[in-house]
Amino acid sequence: MPTLKEQGRKKVISRLFDAIAGAIAGSGVRIKAIGVGCPGPLDSKKGIVLSPPNLPDWRRVPLKKIIEKKFRLPVAVENDANCAGLGEAMNGAGRKASSMVLLTLGTGIGSAIVLNGKLWTGKGGFASELGHVSIDLNGPKCGCGNKGCIEMYASATAVERRRKAAGKMTAEDIYKAAEKGDKVSRRIVDETAVYLGAAVANIINALDPEVIVLAGGMAKAGEKYFAKIRKAAKERALKESFKGVRIVPAELGEDAGIIGAAWRAKKQ
Amino acid sequence: MPTLKEQGRKKVISRLFDAIAGAIAGSGVRIKAIGVGCPGPLDSKKGIVLSPPNLPDWRRVPLKKIIEKKFRLPVAVENDANCAGLGEAMNGAGRKASSMVLLTLGTGIGSAIVLNGKLWTGKGGFASELGHVSIDLNGPKCGCGNKGCIEMYASATAVERRRKAAGKMTAEDIYKAAEKGDKVSRRIVDETAVYLGAAVANIINALDPEVIVLAGGMAKAGEKYFAKIRKAAKERALKESFKGVRIVPAELGEDAGIIGAAWRAKKQ
Repeated sequence: MPTLKEQGRKKVISRLFDAIAGAIAGSGVRIKAIGVGCPGPLDSKKGIVLSPPNLPDWRRVPLKKIIEKKFRLPVAVENDANCAGLGEAMNGAGRKASSMVLLTLGTGIGSAIVLNGKLWTGKGGFASELGHVSIDLNGPKCGCGNKGCIEMYASATAVERRRKAAGKMTAEDIYKAAEKGDKVSRRIVDETAVYLGAAVANIINALDPEVIVLAGGMAKAGEKYFAKIRKAAKERALKESFKGVRIVPAELGEDAGIIGAAWRAKKQ
Repeated sequence: MPTLKEQGRKKVISRLFDAIAGAIAGSGVRIKAIGVGCPGPLDSKKGIVLSPPNLPDWRRVPLKKIIEKKFRLPVAVENDANCAGLGEAMNGAGRKASSMVLLTLGTGIGSAIVLNGKLWTGKGGFASELGHVSIDLNGPKCGCGNKGCIEMYASATAVERRRKAAGKMTAEDIYKAAEKGDKVSRRIVDETAVYLGAAVANIINALDPEVIVLAGGMAKAGEKYFAKIRKAAKERALKESFKGVRIVPAELGEDAGIIGAAWRAKKQ
């Protein structure tokens, strides 16, 4: 069901209760825990939603406690990109891998780091903000305060921004136009593959992961685009670390976050 | 004892045997395992030294097996930066921390990632090459093939290279001259602090670690220099992740690698 955030926090939470109650009633099994994926930043250890830009009246909401009190079940709250990453790691493109990094290329770039089957969340639960790892310390200023964040180059928003001079198009339109031979679109797509390749090479050199999963609209841009990203990454990554790494599209689509939230609850 | 690599691999290994035998004889305790720190790249899982640039006649040397056969004890072989990182994490600047990242600023930049008391070594043992994480995708070409690696900006070699126009100086001389008010040296040191701040901010955004330890000659450059690095990192890192992170000098000096190699053997 849609969030309908404009109705305010209380109504959103009330609708969330209805959704959970409905899911429990319809499940036909005994429910042992509840997993919730939620936009960050949030304190996943305490289950407190801090200040998501897209939920303006949510400020330090103790969502874990609120849902635990209502349903008398253990609750895990995790940021949505981490849930998607855990879902792909357990049941999607990263299954059977010992380590996986996910990048979700949407309005921004979300990401998750899964090491030995567990999310790496850092000291405060804020780790894996790979969209705000800079690929150019003197690059354009990002909303986060940093400069040259990969989000400024390879998110759907960034791709659309670069195409704007030649008329408004969505990122998906741009990928399609590039496929059909539109030169401006093709140049933008090629540039984006190089930016992503540079970011992926950094991830490979830093973490030497088994699988890097790319999700979001561009994941549908097809094998040709992935080949370009792999080529750019190979040119930049250390030979030993690049060897054997898989750079692949996500497999679970919109279900990744739901499946990952369930795993997060189970693992907690 | 010095390596004396010019005498060739066999003599180096024979002297290594002597050193181990001497250490065992002099220890007065029963030795249960041997830990070896060694320049990379190496396959730390199998204990094979692959092709260290500084040991030109070492090619795929199964050092773990060689030492195990000689001493009939379990042997762990790990790259020297990882050993130093593990040493600092267990007994030095990172003790009591749940996660620590080490950067050693020397001829190159070595690094280690320690998560929950364990080295993160990646799928093939090549992880944590943070010296080859790029801070400028269009930056100067690095020996590794990548462009704009932080090693090109903040290693001792890079600091010395930037000072060359105004006469040859070692990195330590440059730090000292900057302290004494030499303007060119001060500019170079300030620039380097910004480069390091950018690299540190990337590490913070990616991993949200509890402690970042800086080792090598520059670690002696003093609190003023660390304050500049912290300031540059704070300007770039995400607020939530920067909060509570400690950016501190290494504590164990040259012993870090020895202590870490012992821990590596114990943990194996």
